[in-house]
Amino acid sequence: MQAFLSTQQRSTQLADAIASAPHNYRVLTGERPTGALHLGHFFGSIIERVKLQQAGVETFIVIADYQVITDRDAMGQVRDHVHSAVLDYLAAGLDPQSTTIFAHSMVPALNQLMLPFLSLVSEAELHRNPTVKSELEASGRALSGLLLTYPVHQAADILFCRGNVVPVGKDNLPHVEMTRLIARRFNERYGQVFEEPQALITQSPQIPGLDGRKMSKSYSNAIALGMSADQTAKLIRGAQTDSDRRISFAPENRPGVSALLTTAALCLGSDEQTLAEQLGDAGSGALKKLATDAVNDFLAGHRARRAQLAAQPGLASEVLARGALTANEQAEATLEQVRATMGTVY
Amino acid sequence: MQAFLSTQQRSTQLADAIASAPHNYRVLTGERPTGALHLGHFFGSIIERVKLQQAGVETFIVIADYQVITDRDAMGQVRDHVHSAVLDYLAAGLDPQSTTIFAHSMVPALNQLMLPFLSLVSEAELHRNPTVKSELEASGRALSGLLLTYPVHQAADILFCRGNVVPVGKDNLPHVEMTRLIARRFNERYGQVFEEPQALITQSPQIPGLDGRKMSKSYSNAIALGMSADQTAKLIRGAQTDSDRRISFAPENRPGVSALLTTAALCLGSDEQTLAEQLGDAGSGALKKLATDAVNDFLAGHRARRAQLAAQPGLASEVLARGALTANEQAEATLEQVRATMGTVY
Repeated sequence: MQAFLSTQQRSTQLADAIASAPHNYRVLTGERPTGALHLGHFFGSIIERVKLQQAGVETFIVIADYQVITDRDAMGQVRDHVHSAVLDYLAAGLDPQSTTIFAHSMVPALNQLMLPFLSLVSEAELHRNPTVKSELEASGRALSGLLLTYPVHQAADILFCRGNVVPVGKDNLPHVEMTRLIARRFNERYGQVFEEPQALITQSPQIPGLDGRKMSKSYSNAIALGMSADQTAKLIRGAQTDSDRRISFAPENRPGVSALLTTAALCLGSDEQTLAEQLGDAGSGALKKLATDAVNDFLAGHRARRAQLAAQPGLASEVLARGALTANEQAEATLEQVRATMGTVY
Repeated sequence: MQAFLSTQQRSTQLADAIASAPHNYRVLTGERPTGALHLGHFFGSIIERVKLQQAGVETFIVIADYQVITDRDAMGQVRDHVHSAVLDYLAAGLDPQSTTIFAHSMVPALNQLMLPFLSLVSEAELHRNPTVKSELEASGRALSGLLLTYPVHQAADILFCRGNVVPVGKDNLPHVEMTRLIARRFNERYGQVFEEPQALITQSPQIPGLDGRKMSKSYSNAIALGMSADQTAKLIRGAQTDSDRRISFAPENRPGVSALLTTAALCLGSDEQTLAEQLGDAGSGALKKLATDAVNDFLAGHRARRAQLAAQPGLASEVLARGALTANEQAEATLEQVRATMGTVY
């Protein structure tokens, strides 16, 4: 806890430093393409990325396609999910001219860094990662070689592009710590190549899923950014609330009602208590209508831009090819330096 | 044991099949560049590779530079060892026009295969590998992420180039089994891409180190192929024998004397008993002279060719660049097919 507080303090200082000298920083962030991006992604990370871009910070966004199979046996509709994510990024205001958007599987030199990096950590250190532990439990499967080692792969993501800032929720701090460890050990053993990246702890509000649990496609409680207004209305209509007509914010006891209040509050720039008082005894029907309108109004612009972008055939592929070009150049330059420092230039 | 016998039987059938249709087979084999190649490598694998080349079987030889750091913290004089190995291959008769000689660190698309392949095995399966276990014990260190996962990397070596024959000693059978498992699971989950490779169990004679232990640079008991005749004489002169003037072949009780007999016998195409009888009561001095002359005569041609090759500046680099070109083309073609089969083409 002490460690977390001091990390949080450093993170606040980092945010100030970024604001005053944005060109000294490069951000690495990304997503697993396991489904459509939803409101949780929007409030949790996409808005923050757009702000960083506007502030002049260069960002690399990895679409971590190989991480889809850390905890399952199939890639699913991965191409659709990747294309859909690109459309959401663009619709939200991310500009592929200044933000590099790429997929793991398109950047071999990045993936090669796994080899030297795996030598720098012990199996015991891999096992101690609490995020891997909880993901393993959630998966209900045997620990795969890929789940065990993906924090090392994430280190490759961050270090290949010389990312020195990684926006994370508290859950992902162990990954940044492992990256720092790998950078430090590499530098000590072979020579200075990598800067140790810093965690930028995101202060973004958490939006719960419609049932009050974490918003996730696999719980069917997620409002996808690309849904139509009708699909959104239908999903919210089906959300479980309760028969108490008095609306109140009580996440523990009334998860459904409270989740709708949070959703509406975030979209309206209001807060849950105020909305609950406004609704009074109007019951869940009125709450659902309020939330539906709030979400659909909030996303109307995004969805209109998204539809326009989706109508341009080949756009997502072009963005990904452009991102892969930049990422490959960067990865090959870093790998070249790694080879020279390790003495593997023949 | 039953399993090993049936593997050995299949291996004998495989050798026959290769002899009758060499063009149906591609061999993947290789070395860790941790030191100079020695007589153990020569009798154990290099002679076999030359025979396969003469029989018209295409071979890929990986110089596994990243595997140097599976069990240590430093690459050592890796460039010297890699160049030295290339000179030994060429001097022994391997022709870079028909045999692809390449280093791991030069083939990013090969290394990328680690990612999907790691998803196909569980951590428990990685742990069960008896070869990894014994290498871990020998290293006396904590298990590194790279040592734990290198059999998956070996699977990438074999499968990237569509190798369907892997010459192995009994110790390395578990690696071929893991490769077969990975190929099978990939095909089942995503679609047919990989042929399951077969183990060709090498019948080559084991040459012990000068102290009777396994020949290894780290035991200082190895006769490097590139040593001068004088260095060889000096090394053999320093070998520990015993004061019994009667020469006899008894590996358990007289490891030094017996190792010299085996060394001389292999180089002379004779056998230990015959040589021991010839030497009679002549003592270790005569045995050492016999062994020194046998080794130096046996290696004279190799060493002369090696010296000529070493005098051509840039030759080893050229061979490695040429090999990397072929290996990269092959790896990119395989990766392309893997991407298409997994649906990660955007």
